Amino acid sequence: MAEKNYKLTVSYDGTDFSGWQRQPGKRTVQGTIEEALANICGKKTSVIGAGRTDAGVHARGQVANFKADLRLEKDELLRALNALLPDDVRILSIQKVPAGFNARKMASAKVYQYRIWNSRRISPFVFRYVLHWPGHLDVEQMAKAAKLFLRRDDFTAFSSNCLLHPVREVYRSEIKKKQNEIIYTIEANGFLRYMVRTIVGTLLEVGRGKMTPLQVEEAFRKKDRALAGPTAPAKGLCLIKINY
Amino acid sequence: MAEKNYKLTVSYDGTDFSGWQRQPGKRTVQGTIEEALANICGKKTSVIGAGRTDAGVHARGQVANFKADLRLEKDELLRALNALLPDDVRILSIQKVPAGFNARKMASAKVYQYRIWNSRRISPFVFRYVLHWPGHLDVEQMAKAAKLFLRRDDFTAFSSNCLLHPVREVYRSEIKKKQNEIIYTIEANGFLRYMVRTIVGTLLEVGRGKMTPLQVEEAFRKKDRALAGPTAPAKGLCLIKINY
Repeated sequence: MAEKNYKLTVSYDGTDFSGWQRQPGKRTVQGTIEEALANICGKKTSVIGAGRTDAGVHARGQVANFKADLRLEKDELLRALNALLPDDVRILSIQKVPAGFNARKMASAKVYQYRIWNSRRISPFVFRYVLHWPGHLDVEQMAKAAKLFLRRDDFTAFSSNCLLHPVREVYRSEIKKKQNEIIYTIEANGFLRYMVRTIVGTLLEVGRGKMTPLQVEEAFRKKDRALAGPTAPAKGLCLIKINY
Repeated sequence: MAEKNYKLTVSYDGTDFSGWQRQPGKRTVQGTIEEALANICGKKTSVIGAGRTDAGVHARGQVANFKADLRLEKDELLRALNALLPDDVRILSIQKVPAGFNARKMASAKVYQYRIWNSRRISPFVFRYVLHWPGHLDVEQMAKAAKLFLRRDDFTAFSSNCLLHPVREVYRSEIKKKQNEIIYTIEANGFLRYMVRTIVGTLLEVGRGKMTPLQVEEAFRKKDRALAGPTAPAKGLCLIKINY
Protein backbone atom coordinates (compact mmCIF):
# COMPACT_ATOMS: atom_id res chain seq x y z
CA MET A 1 0.00 0.00 0.00
CA ALA A 2 1.30 3.44 -0.88
CA GLU A 3 1.74 6.27 1.59
CA LYS A 4 -0.98 8.91 1.57
CA ASN A 5 -0.59 12.60 2.28
CA TYR A 6 -2.97 14.10 4.87
CA LYS A 7 -3.70 17.78 5.39
CA LEU A 8 -4.84 18.77 8.89
CA THR A 9 -6.54 21.97 10.07
CA VAL A 10 -5.56 22.48 13.68
CA SER A 11 -6.77 24.76 16.48
CA TYR A 12 -5.00 25.18 19.81
CA ASP A 13 -4.91 27.23 22.96
CA GLY A 14 -1.21 28.14 23.06
CA THR A 15 -1.18 29.01 26.79
CA ASP A 16 0.38 25.77 27.99
CA PHE A 17 2.57 25.05 24.94
CA SER A 18 6.17 26.06 24.25
CA GLY A 19 5.09 26.96 20.73
CA TRP A 20 4.48 24.85 17.64
CA GLN A 21 7.91 23.45 16.93
CA ARG A 22 9.12 20.19 18.46
CA GLN A 23 11.79 20.69 21.16
CA PRO A 24 13.28 18.00 23.39
CA GLY A 25 11.76 17.97 26.88
CA LYS A 26 9.16 20.62 26.09
CA ARG A 27 5.42 20.41 25.51
CA THR A 28 4.93 21.66 21.96
CA VAL A 29 1.98 21.39 19.56
CA GLN A 30 3.98 19.62 16.84
CA GLY A 31 5.47 17.21 19.39
CA THR A 32 2.04 16.49 20.89
CA ILE A 33 0.45 15.76 17.49
CA GLU A 34 3.43 13.61 16.43
CA GLU A 35 3.10 11.59 19.63
CA ALA A 36 -0.59 10.92 18.98
CA LEU A 37 0.19 10.01 15.35
CA ALA A 38 2.95 7.62 16.39
CA ASN A 39 0.30 5.73 18.36
CA ILE A 40 -1.97 5.50 15.32
CA CYS A 41 0.69 4.84 12.67
CA GLY A 42 2.77 2.51 14.82
CA LYS A 43 5.90 4.46 14.00
CA LYS A 44 7.48 7.91 14.21
CA THR A 45 5.64 10.28 11.87
CA SER A 46 6.75 13.83 11.09
CA VAL A 47 4.20 16.62 10.89
CA ILE A 48 4.94 19.73 8.82
CA GLY A 49 3.23 22.89 10.06
CA ALA A 50 2.50 25.95 7.91
CA GLY A 51 3.43 28.47 10.61
CA ARG A 52 5.81 27.99 13.51
CA THR A 53 3.86 29.85 16.17
CA ASP A 54 5.83 31.01 19.21
CA ALA A 55 5.24 29.95 22.82
CA GLY A 56 1.87 31.27 24.04
CA VAL A 57 0.51 32.05 20.55
CA HIS A 58 -2.88 30.49 19.73
CA ALA A 59 -4.29 29.08 16.49
CA ARG A 60 -7.76 28.74 15.01
CA GLY A 61 -6.66 27.62 11.56
CA GLN A 62 -3.11 26.27 11.60
CA VAL A 63 -2.49 23.84 8.74
CA ALA A 64 -0.15 20.84 8.80
CA ASN A 65 0.50 17.73 6.75
CA PHE A 66 1.94 14.27 7.27
CA LYS A 67 2.46 11.13 5.23
CA ALA A 68 1.40 7.70 6.38
CA ASP A 69 0.25 4.36 5.09
CA LEU A 70 -3.08 4.00 6.90
CA ARG A 71 -6.18 1.88 6.38
CA LEU A 72 -8.36 4.24 8.39
CA GLU A 73 -10.96 6.39 6.67
CA LYS A 74 -10.26 10.10 7.20
CA ASP A 75 -13.24 10.49 9.58
CA GLU A 76 -11.97 7.60 11.68
CA LEU A 77 -8.52 9.15 11.67
CA LEU A 78 -10.00 12.48 12.80
CA ARG A 79 -11.82 10.83 15.69
CA ALA A 80 -8.82 8.71 16.70
CA LEU A 81 -6.47 11.71 16.67
CA ASN A 82 -8.79 13.89 18.73
CA ALA A 83 -9.35 11.06 21.19
CA LEU A 84 -5.59 10.81 21.73
CA LEU A 85 -4.88 14.55 21.83
CA PRO A 86 -5.23 16.71 24.95
CA ASP A 87 -8.20 19.14 25.16
CA ASP A 88 -6.11 22.20 24.25
CA VAL A 89 -5.36 20.94 20.70
CA ARG A 90 -8.15 19.94 18.34
CA ILE A 91 -7.97 18.71 14.76
CA LEU A 92 -10.81 20.52 13.00
CA SER A 93 -10.63 18.65 9.71
CA ILE A 94 -8.60 16.20 7.66
CA GLN A 95 -8.27 16.04 3.87
CA LYS A 96 -6.37 13.69 1.62
CA VAL A 97 -4.09 15.74 -0.62
CA PRO A 98 -1.70 14.98 -3.52
CA ALA A 99 1.73 13.66 -2.55
CA GLY A 100 3.36 16.95 -3.50
CA PHE A 101 1.44 19.04 -0.97
CA ASN A 102 3.66 20.63 1.71
CA ALA A 103 1.83 22.73 4.32
CA ARG A 104 4.76 25.07 4.85
CA LYS A 105 6.23 25.49 1.37
CA MET A 106 2.94 25.81 -0.48
CA ALA A 107 1.29 28.37 1.79
CA SER A 108 0.59 31.50 -0.29
CA ALA A 109 -0.62 33.69 2.60
CA LYS A 110 -1.24 33.62 6.34
CA VAL A 111 -3.74 35.58 8.42
CA TYR A 112 -3.00 36.54 12.03
CA GLN A 113 -5.11 38.41 14.53
CA TYR A 114 -4.02 40.29 17.64
CA ARG A 115 -6.50 41.15 20.43
CA ILE A 116 -6.02 44.16 22.72
CA TRP A 117 -8.42 44.46 25.68
CA ASN A 118 -8.71 48.22 26.08
CA SER A 119 -10.66 48.63 29.31
CA ARG A 120 -9.76 48.65 32.97
CA ARG A 121 -12.08 45.74 33.67
CA ILE A 122 -11.18 42.39 32.19
CA SER A 123 -13.01 39.10 32.53
CA PRO A 124 -11.10 36.14 34.01
CA PHE A 125 -12.31 34.13 31.01
CA VAL A 126 -10.45 36.22 28.45
CA PHE A 127 -7.03 37.00 29.92
CA ARG A 128 -5.29 34.08 28.18
CA TYR A 129 -6.21 35.45 24.74
CA VAL A 130 -5.67 39.20 24.87
CA LEU A 131 -3.17 41.85 25.81
CA HIS A 132 -4.78 43.81 28.67
CA TRP A 133 -4.16 47.52 28.05
CA PRO A 134 -6.24 49.63 30.47
CA GLY A 135 -4.78 53.00 29.38
CA HIS A 136 -6.09 55.32 26.67
CA LEU A 137 -5.37 54.42 23.03
CA ASP A 138 -6.15 56.60 20.03
CA VAL A 139 -7.79 53.95 17.84
CA GLU A 140 -8.18 56.29 14.86
CA GLN A 141 -4.44 56.98 14.77
CA MET A 142 -3.72 53.26 15.16
CA ALA A 143 -6.04 52.48 12.23
CA LYS A 144 -4.24 55.06 10.07
CA ALA A 145 -0.82 53.68 11.05
CA ALA A 146 -1.98 50.12 10.37
CA LYS A 147 -2.45 51.07 6.69
CA LEU A 148 1.26 51.97 6.44
CA PHE A 149 2.11 48.27 6.73
CA LEU A 150 0.06 47.48 3.64
CA ARG A 151 3.07 47.16 1.30
CA ARG A 152 5.70 44.96 -0.24
CA ASP A 153 8.89 45.94 1.58
CA ASP A 154 11.87 44.95 3.70
CA PHE A 155 10.42 44.27 7.19
CA THR A 156 13.79 44.00 8.99
CA ALA A 157 12.91 46.88 11.34
CA PHE A 158 9.88 44.85 12.48
CA SER A 159 11.59 41.56 13.24
CA SER A 160 13.98 40.16 15.82
CA ASN A 161 16.48 38.79 13.33
CA CYS A 162 18.18 39.81 10.12
CA LEU A 163 17.45 37.60 7.17
CA LEU A 164 18.98 37.38 3.72
CA HIS A 165 15.49 37.73 2.20
CA PRO A 166 13.55 40.10 4.46
CA VAL A 167 11.02 41.29 1.89
CA ARG A 168 7.39 40.39 2.60
CA GLU A 169 4.14 41.53 1.07
CA VAL A 170 1.27 42.53 3.35
CA TYR A 171 -2.17 42.23 1.72
CA ARG A 172 -4.31 43.34 4.65
CA SER A 173 -3.49 45.35 7.75
CA GLU A 174 -6.41 46.75 9.67
CA ILE A 175 -7.57 47.80 13.11
CA LYS A 176 -11.16 47.28 14.24
CA LYS A 177 -12.78 48.33 17.48
CA LYS A 178 -15.43 45.99 18.89
CA GLN A 179 -16.77 47.04 22.31
CA ASN A 180 -13.79 46.91 24.71
CA GLU A 181 -11.56 45.21 22.18
CA ILE A 182 -9.16 46.49 19.55
CA ILE A 183 -8.52 43.78 17.00
CA TYR A 184 -5.64 43.95 14.54
CA THR A 185 -5.76 41.70 11.48
CA ILE A 186 -2.81 41.18 9.16
CA GLU A 187 -2.46 39.01 6.07
CA ALA A 188 0.85 38.56 4.27
CA ASN A 189 2.64 36.13 1.99
CA GLY A 190 4.95 35.38 4.91
CA PHE A 191 6.14 36.71 8.24
CA LEU A 192 9.56 37.33 9.76
CA ARG A 193 10.19 36.28 13.35
CA TYR A 194 8.10 38.37 15.82
CA MET A 195 6.86 40.47 12.88
CA VAL A 196 3.19 40.68 13.91
CA ARG A 197 4.05 41.31 17.55
CA THR A 198 6.52 44.08 16.64
CA ILE A 199 3.99 45.73 14.33
CA VAL A 200 1.42 45.57 17.16
CA GLY A 201 3.98 47.00 19.60
CA THR A 202 4.52 49.84 17.12
CA LEU A 203 0.77 50.44 16.69
CA LEU A 204 0.47 50.63 20.49
CA GLU A 205 3.16 53.34 20.54
CA VAL A 206 1.14 55.23 17.94
CA GLY A 207 -2.04 54.75 19.98
CA ARG A 208 -0.30 56.18 23.06
CA GLY A 209 0.97 59.16 21.05
CA LYS A 210 4.60 58.08 21.47
CA MET A 211 5.18 57.44 17.75
CA THR A 212 3.99 59.12 14.57
CA PRO A 213 3.29 57.63 11.12
CA LEU A 214 6.42 59.47 9.97
CA GLN A 215 8.52 57.49 12.43
CA VAL A 216 7.02 54.23 11.12
CA GLU A 217 8.18 55.25 7.64
CA GLU A 218 11.61 56.06 9.02
CA ALA A 219 11.90 52.61 10.64
CA PHE A 220 11.11 51.04 7.24
CA ARG A 221 13.64 53.26 5.47
CA LYS A 222 16.48 52.73 7.93
CA LYS A 223 15.66 49.02 8.50
CA ASP A 224 16.44 49.64 12.16
CA ARG A 225 14.68 47.49 14.79
CA ALA A 226 15.43 50.13 17.44
CA LEU A 227 13.12 52.59 15.64
CA ALA A 228 10.07 50.30 15.89
CA GLY A 229 7.96 49.69 19.01
CA PRO A 230 8.52 46.90 21.55
CA THR A 231 7.46 43.30 20.86
CA ALA A 232 3.87 42.82 22.10
CA PRO A 233 3.22 39.75 24.34
CA ALA A 234 2.50 36.40 22.65
CA LYS A 235 -0.85 35.67 24.30
CA GLY A 236 -2.82 38.25 22.29
CA LEU A 237 -1.79 36.64 19.00
CA CYS A 238 -3.73 33.99 17.07
CA LEU A 239 -3.02 32.31 13.72
CA ILE A 240 -6.38 32.50 11.94
CA LYS A 241 -5.95 31.02 8.48
CA ILE A 242 -3.49 29.70 5.92
CA ASN A 243 -4.20 30.23 2.24
CA TYR A 244 -2.96 27.94 -0.54
CA MET B 1 -12.16 55.22 62.58
CA ALA B 2 -14.95 52.69 62.41
CA GLU B 3 -14.82 49.50 60.38
CA LYS B 4 -16.72 49.60 57.10
CA ASN B 5 -18.48 46.70 55.39
CA TYR B 6 -17.62 46.10 51.72
CA LYS B 7 -19.61 44.03 49.24
CA LEU B 8 -17.63 42.54 46.34
CA THR B 9 -18.88 41.08 43.07
CA VAL B 10 -16.36 38.49 41.96
CA SER B 11 -15.74 36.55 38.73
CA TYR B 12 -13.32 33.66 38.42
CA ASP B 13 -12.18 30.88 36.15
CA GLY B 14 -12.42 27.92 38.54
CA THR B 15 -10.09 25.66 36.50
CA ASP B 16 -7.01 26.15 38.64
CA PHE B 17 -8.74 26.61 42.01
CA SER B 18 -9.66 24.01 44.64
CA GLY B 19 -13.01 25.75 44.96
CA TRP B 20 -14.10 28.85 46.84
CA GLN B 21 -13.50 27.85 50.44
CA ARG B 22 -10.15 28.43 52.16
CA GLN B 23 -8.21 25.20 52.78
CA PRO B 24 -4.69 24.91 54.15
CA GLY B 25 -2.09 24.31 51.43
CA LYS B 26 -4.58 24.66 48.56
CA ARG B 27 -5.15 27.44 46.05
CA THR B 28 -8.73 28.58 46.70
CA VAL B 29 -10.61 31.71 45.63
CA GLN B 30 -11.42 32.79 49.18
CA GLY B 31 -7.82 32.19 50.30
CA THR B 32 -6.46 34.13 47.31
CA ILE B 33 -8.73 37.15 47.95
CA GLU B 34 -7.96 37.09 51.68
CA GLU B 35 -4.24 37.09 50.91
CA ALA B 36 -4.58 40.16 48.67
CA LEU B 37 -6.75 41.88 51.31
CA ALA B 38 -4.22 41.16 54.06
CA ASN B 39 -1.70 43.12 51.99
CA ILE B 40 -4.05 46.07 51.70
CA CYS B 41 -5.47 46.01 55.23
CA GLY B 42 -2.18 45.17 56.93
CA LYS B 43 -3.84 42.33 58.84
CA LYS B 44 -5.73 39.08 58.39
CA THR B 45 -9.18 39.84 56.95
CA SER B 46 -11.96 37.27 56.53
CA VAL B 47 -14.06 37.23 53.40
CA ILE B 48 -17.59 35.77 53.48
CA GLY B 49 -18.76 34.31 50.16
CA ALA B 50 -22.41 33.84 49.17
CA GLY B 51 -21.88 30.45 47.52
CA ARG B 52 -19.16 27.92 48.29
CA THR B 53 -18.45 26.80 44.75
CA ASP B 54 -16.70 23.43 44.36
CA ALA B 55 -13.30 22.82 42.77
CA GLY B 56 -13.44 23.58 39.04
CA VAL B 57 -16.71 25.54 39.19
CA HIS B 58 -16.60 29.04 37.67
CA ALA B 59 -18.30 32.28 38.69
CA ARG B 60 -19.48 35.38 36.84
CA GLY B 61 -21.33 36.95 39.73
CA GLN B 62 -20.19 35.53 43.07
CA VAL B 63 -20.80 37.95 45.94
CA ALA B 64 -18.69 38.32 49.06
CA ASN B 65 -18.23 40.79 51.88
CA PHE B 66 -15.53 41.78 54.36
CA LYS B 67 -15.08 44.37 57.10
CA ALA B 68 -12.08 46.66 57.32
CA ASP B 69 -11.03 50.07 58.52
CA LEU B 70 -9.66 51.57 55.30
CA ARG B 71 -8.93 55.09 54.15
CA LEU B 72 -9.04 54.09 50.46
CA GLU B 73 -11.94 55.17 48.26
CA LYS B 74 -13.83 52.17 46.87
CA ASP B 75 -12.47 52.73 43.34
CA GLU B 76 -8.92 52.77 44.66
CA LEU B 77 -9.66 49.62 46.64
CA LEU B 78 -11.02 47.96 43.48
CA ARG B 79 -7.88 48.82 41.53
CA ALA B 80 -5.54 47.80 44.36
CA LEU B 81 -7.29 44.46 44.82
CA ASN B 82 -7.27 43.60 41.11
CA ALA B 83 -3.62 44.61 40.86
CA LEU B 84 -2.76 42.13 43.63
CA LEU B 85 -5.02 39.30 42.43
CA PRO B 86 -4.01 36.75 39.78
CA ASP B 87 -5.60 37.03 36.31
CA ASP B 88 -8.09 34.21 36.93
CA VAL B 89 -9.98 36.13 39.67
CA ARG B 90 -11.37 39.60 39.04
CA ILE B 91 -13.31 41.87 41.35
CA LEU B 92 -16.02 43.35 39.12
CA SER B 93 -17.35 45.91 41.58
CA ILE B 94 -17.22 47.09 45.18
CA GLN B 95 -20.01 48.71 47.20
CA LYS B 96 -20.11 50.00 50.74
CA VAL B 97 -22.97 48.29 52.58
CA PRO B 98 -24.53 48.58 56.05
CA ALA B 99 -22.69 46.79 58.86
CA GLY B 100 -25.39 44.12 59.05
CA PHE B 101 -24.93 42.89 55.47
CA ASN B 102 -23.71 39.27 55.28
CA ALA B 103 -23.19 37.93 51.74
CA ARG B 104 -24.05 34.36 52.68
CA LYS B 105 -26.87 34.75 55.19
CA MET B 106 -28.75 37.47 53.35
CA ALA B 107 -28.75 35.90 49.89
CA SER B 108 -32.37 35.35 48.87
CA ALA B 109 -31.64 33.42 45.65
CA LYS B 110 -28.75 32.16 43.52
CA VAL B 111 -28.60 31.56 39.78
CA TYR B 112 -26.37 28.85 38.29
CA GLN B 113 -25.80 27.88 34.67
CA TYR B 114 -24.51 24.60 33.28
CA ARG B 115 -23.12 24.36 29.73
CA ILE B 116 -23.21 21.14 27.70
CA TRP B 117 -21.30 21.13 24.40
CA ASN B 118 -23.39 18.78 22.28
CA SER B 119 -21.31 18.30 19.15
CA ARG B 120 -18.46 16.03 18.18
CA ARG B 121 -16.22 19.00 17.41
CA ILE B 122 -15.17 21.19 20.30
CA SER B 123 -12.95 24.26 20.23
CA PRO B 124 -9.79 24.22 22.37
CA PHE B 125 -10.90 27.61 23.69
CA VAL B 126 -14.08 26.29 25.33
CA PHE B 127 -13.18 22.96 26.94
CA ARG B 128 -12.56 24.48 30.39
CA TYR B 129 -16.15 25.77 30.61
CA VAL B 130 -18.38 23.03 29.26
CA LEU B 131 -19.15 19.35 29.56
CA HIS B 132 -18.32 17.84 26.15
CA TRP B 133 -21.13 15.44 25.21
CA PRO B 134 -20.77 14.34 21.57
CA GLY B 135 -23.63 11.80 21.64
CA HIS B 136 -27.29 12.43 20.80
CA LEU B 137 -29.45 14.18 23.39
CA ASP B 138 -33.20 14.70 23.16
CA VAL B 139 -33.32 18.38 24.06
CA GLU B 140 -37.12 18.53 24.05
CA GLN B 141 -37.35 15.76 26.64
CA MET B 142 -34.64 17.46 28.72
CA ALA B 143 -36.56 20.75 28.61
CA LYS B 144 -39.72 18.98 29.79
CA ALA B 145 -37.85 17.21 32.60
CA ALA B 146 -36.20 20.50 33.64
CA LYS B 147 -39.66 21.86 34.49
CA LEU B 148 -40.16 19.07 37.05
CA PHE B 149 -37.53 20.70 39.25
CA LEU B 150 -39.56 23.89 39.43
CA ARG B 151 -40.93 23.24 42.95
CA ARG B 152 -40.52 23.65 46.66
CA ASP B 153 -39.52 20.20 47.87
CA ASP B 154 -37.04 17.96 49.65
CA PHE B 155 -34.04 17.70 47.26
CA THR B 156 -32.24 14.91 49.18
CA ALA B 157 -32.31 12.61 46.13
CA PHE B 158 -30.36 15.27 44.20
CA SER B 159 -27.58 15.89 46.67
CA SER B 160 -24.53 14.07 48.00
CA ASN B 161 -25.41 14.49 51.66
CA CYS B 162 -28.38 14.21 53.94
CA LEU B 163 -29.31 17.41 55.73
CA LEU B 164 -31.70 18.14 58.55
CA HIS B 165 -33.36 20.82 56.39
CA PRO B 166 -33.24 19.55 52.80
CA VAL B 167 -36.17 21.59 51.46
CA ARG B 168 -35.30 24.13 48.76
CA GLU B 169 -37.46 26.19 46.44
CA VAL B 170 -36.54 26.36 42.75
CA TYR B 171 -37.86 29.48 40.97
CA ARG B 172 -36.46 28.80 37.52
CA SER B 173 -35.29 25.61 35.84
CA GLU B 174 -34.91 25.72 32.09
CA ILE B 175 -33.04 24.24 29.18
CA LYS B 176 -32.10 26.33 26.14
CA LYS B 177 -30.38 25.23 22.95
CA LYS B 178 -28.00 27.72 21.34
CA GLN B 179 -26.15 26.36 18.31
CA ASN B 180 -24.02 23.46 19.59
CA GLU B 181 -24.70 24.23 23.19
CA ILE B 182 -27.36 23.12 25.64
CA ILE B 183 -27.56 25.58 28.52
CA TYR B 184 -29.34 24.76 31.76
CA THR B 185 -30.28 27.64 34.08
CA ILE B 186 -31.50 27.15 37.61
CA GLU B 187 -32.47 29.67 40.25
CA ALA B 188 -33.34 28.68 43.81
CA ASN B 189 -33.42 30.09 47.32
CA GLY B 190 -30.54 27.76 48.15
CA PHE B 191 -28.74 24.65 46.95
CA LEU B 192 -27.71 21.41 48.60
CA ARG B 193 -24.23 20.03 47.97
CA TYR B 194 -23.82 18.93 44.29
CA MET B 195 -27.50 19.74 43.71
CA VAL B 196 -27.12 21.48 40.33
CA ARG B 197 -24.65 18.88 39.06
CA THR B 198 -26.93 16.00 40.12
CA ILE B 199 -29.93 17.63 38.45
CA VAL B 200 -27.84 18.08 35.28
CA GLY B 201 -26.70 14.45 35.50
CA THR B 202 -30.37 13.46 35.73
CA LEU B 203 -31.36 15.66 32.78
CA LEU B 204 -28.58 14.00 30.74
CA GLU B 205 -30.06 10.59 31.56
CA VAL B 206 -33.40 11.88 30.31
CA GLY B 207 -31.75 13.27 27.17
CA ARG B 208 -30.19 9.86 26.48
CA GLY B 209 -33.52 8.10 26.98
CA LYS B 210 -32.27 6.28 30.08
CA MET B 211 -34.67 8.00 32.50
CA THR B 212 -38.28 9.16 32.26
CA PRO B 213 -40.02 12.11 33.95
CA LEU B 214 -41.86 9.49 36.03
CA GLN B 215 -38.55 8.28 37.43
CA VAL B 216 -37.60 11.85 38.35
CA GLU B 217 -40.84 12.08 40.33
CA GLU B 218 -40.04 8.76 41.99
CA ALA B 219 -36.58 10.00 43.05
CA PHE B 220 -38.25 13.02 44.69
CA ARG B 221 -40.84 10.83 46.42
CA LYS B 222 -38.41 8.23 47.74
CA LYS B 223 -35.65 10.81 48.54
CA ASP B 224 -33.18 8.26 47.21
CA ARG B 225 -29.92 9.52 45.66
CA ALA B 226 -29.52 6.18 43.84
CA LEU B 227 -32.61 6.95 41.77
CA ALA B 228 -31.20 10.20 40.35
CA GLY B 229 -28.57 10.51 37.60
CA PRO B 230 -24.81 10.73 38.15
CA THR B 231 -23.12 13.97 39.28
CA ALA B 232 -22.11 15.97 36.19
CA PRO B 233 -18.50 17.29 36.08
CA ALA B 234 -17.73 20.60 37.81
CA LYS B 235 -16.23 22.44 34.84
CA GLY B 236 -19.56 23.00 33.04
CA LEU B 237 -21.00 24.85 36.05
CA CYS B 238 -20.94 28.60 36.62
CA LEU B 239 -22.39 30.73 39.44
CA ILE B 240 -24.12 33.55 37.56
CA LYS B 241 -25.79 35.78 40.12
CA ILE B 242 -26.76 36.22 43.77
CA ASN B 243 -29.99 38.02 44.63
CA TYR B 244 -30.59 39.95 47.89
